[in-house]
Amino acid sequence: MGAPEALQGLKVLDFTRVYSGPYCTMLLADLGAEVIKIEAVGKGDDTRAFHPIKNGQSGYFSYLNRNKKSITLNLKSEAGKQIVMELARWADVVVENFSAGTIKKLGLGYKELAEVNPGLIYASISGFGQSGPYSKKAAYDAIAQAMGGITYLTGYPDGEPVKVGPAISDAATGVHTAVAILAALHYRERSGKGQYIDMAMMDTVFSMLENSVPILTMTGQNPSRIGNSNPGSAPYNMYHTADGGVFISTANDSLFTRLTTVMGQPELIQDPRFSSNPLRKQNEKEIDAIVERWTLQHTSKEVEVMLDEVGVPVASAKSVAELVEDPQLLMRDMVVEQEVPGVGTVKFPGDPLKLQDTPPIMARRAPELGEHTEEVLRSILHLGEEEIRRLKENQIV
Amino acid sequence: MGAPEALQGLKVLDFTRVYSGPYCTMLLADLGAEVIKIEAVGKGDDTRAFHPIKNGQSGYFSYLNRNKKSITLNLKSEAGKQIVMELARWADVVVENFSAGTIKKLGLGYKELAEVNPGLIYASISGFGQSGPYSKKAAYDAIAQAMGGITYLTGYPDGEPVKVGPAISDAATGVHTAVAILAALHYRERSGKGQYIDMAMMDTVFSMLENSVPILTMTGQNPSRIGNSNPGSAPYNMYHTADGGVFISTANDSLFTRLTTVMGQPELIQDPRFSSNPLRKQNEKEIDAIVERWTLQHTSKEVEVMLDEVGVPVASAKSVAELVEDPQLLMRDMVVEQEVPGVGTVKFPGDPLKLQDTPPIMARRAPELGEHTEEVLRSILHLGEEEIRRLKENQIV
Repeated sequence: MGAPEALQGLKVLDFTRVYSGPYCTMLLADLGAEVIKIEAVGKGDDTRAFHPIKNGQSGYFSYLNRNKKSITLNLKSEAGKQIVMELARWADVVVENFSAGTIKKLGLGYKELAEVNPGLIYASISGFGQSGPYSKKAAYDAIAQAMGGITYLTGYPDGEPVKVGPAISDAATGVHTAVAILAALHYRERSGKGQYIDMAMMDTVFSMLENSVPILTMTGQNPSRIGNSNPGSAPYNMYHTADGGVFISTANDSLFTRLTTVMGQPELIQDPRFSSNPLRKQNEKEIDAIVERWTLQHTSKEVEVMLDEVGVPVASAKSVAELVEDPQLLMRDMVVEQEVPGVGTVKFPGDPLKLQDTPPIMARRAPELGEHTEEVLRSILHLGEEEIRRLKENQIV
Repeated sequence: MGAPEALQGLKVLDFTRVYSGPYCTMLLADLGAEVIKIEAVGKGDDTRAFHPIKNGQSGYFSYLNRNKKSITLNLKSEAGKQIVMELARWADVVVENFSAGTIKKLGLGYKELAEVNPGLIYASISGFGQSGPYSKKAAYDAIAQAMGGITYLTGYPDGEPVKVGPAISDAATGVHTAVAILAALHYRERSGKGQYIDMAMMDTVFSMLENSVPILTMTGQNPSRIGNSNPGSAPYNMYHTADGGVFISTANDSLFTRLTTVMGQPELIQDPRFSSNPLRKQNEKEIDAIVERWTLQHTSKEVEVMLDEVGVPVASAKSVAELVEDPQLLMRDMVVEQEVPGVGTVKFPGDPLKLQDTPPIMARRAPELGEHTEEVLRSILHLGEEEIRRLKENQIV
């Protein structure tokens, strides 16, 4: 007997593909929801062909689709649509991230599904939302990042905008969608009512710009790129060391004094250029140069050990190879092993939702294409062998 | 009468400061939860002094604390602790983001509060978690980004790691915490049981690295920075134009053909260097140069209009000044106006949780320090005027 699961009994019909939607339903599945993923017959989620591939299996897909069941379904066929309607009766939640309007055109939008199940919570994710001037605009992650403002704000003042390396607009929208779904579920418990949720990647990126919007609207200054520095504090930057670089962050006199004491220059806090955080920010180039003269005399590891000891925020930029061996991540079950058929056991990121009594589960590897088609048709739709055979023959499933 | 609220009736006792915790409780408050924010007497949340400041009011604080109530409380005093215990009886949810272990030392940890309210859901947010080798390590956003791996992966191949401009590890951890809280609430509805949640910023950053971990663990290749390009597709980059730059993303033959047709070079798809996506990625420099020769002949706006028309993903990196006037964001209520006392009406980001029947509310501006202290002491703790006077006199509230 494992621990109980927070979302046990929650039924999710999952039309999502690629990253944003699958990240959302992964979080739900990790907490115990029963997620049935609908995939295109013979082809499946695009990410089944995404890098990295080994022995025909995609690590991209395997990571994001653990704990889910896969059924194949031809959504353009009448019989396929009929099966969706039956599954919509069964489901508590539907999630989809086709381009805006696509699933509605198939006759499988919120309106149609809510007719057979008025309690349904139906979440759509798209680049810009289901209506409005951009609703038809094509969106990839790099586009959503640029449109939402995070790209403009990332990079160096004298350089060009840089997108965030990983597809942050996808993951961010996925997790925000999970909040919306669980809040709608809470409302349904009280009201009996389902509802439609219309999430947009541009919105969620714009929602994560920290104080950038109030900076503009209260001061008139249009925020720009600041590299690895901080708009209000110094020394706060990346500093070169004998063998690389470290990030050091101080934002008050106490941290600055601890830093300069370790540096052997405790008198700096009395220097009129550096005696308060605003003054240090004003004379940032000077104080950054002084700090870097010190860091250059040590390895990154040495600087980290010395500053950790006195509680000054410090870190090097960890690569993935370091992270999969990181003692803190390992202790927190953030690196998990799962089977990939034909490949063996592979390490993937764990789940960050650390509920102590109902922890995320890693019980099931990602499904092969259509692995649960027959099981679902039998146990949820109560179809007989003959019907299942016919659906297969006609490539409905 | 406004629309109903998804989380109406949910009671949140909020010890959070700065960004990660306040972003979490903002999402809950926007959906109707009653959030009572506990602030230090006479000082309040650090962000009350964060940039931008106008007439003594912080836009940083005002943005993240709308819809919340503020009470001041001296957590080190016995009388203050007693008030927390009473409020813990009242609350469904507690959220805190002091450095790991701090609130436990005050005698206000999960164990103590669960004794008076076993149904309590109690979420802690810290840089690295409440236990383990890094639990005492100091964390600012730049440190959590570096430790979680996103900094290493952002920037150019020939350049250094660059942190994401806005404090993405804070916002990301805040929204993940909201998922954990609402999932725990769902579990409590079924089991009657509360529980403890131990969230870490490093975990959530690591959880948002897309396919980086499987790339390492399935291929042995340690992923690195790729600027504005894409690990598997080309042309997919930022291209200079006559007046700036645009992001163009293609990841299949159909989009590539549409792009090259607009460019007046439809024959490129027959070029043996460019006839499939893997080949284009292999010959990325050549195809990027060809695309840029075309974009340089047009303004960014012209390129956007031409490619939007044929459905090729395209965007320029929008600055905040453009975004607060953006027609799509305006239509989606993503730019809202709220009062800031002594300043007037200010524009802030709206809430991206677009539940159609229970939309996020923007009814209340952020509270002034201790604005609701008396109201809370009276209506929830049922204290009399004399008791309230004494608490004030002794600087307990």
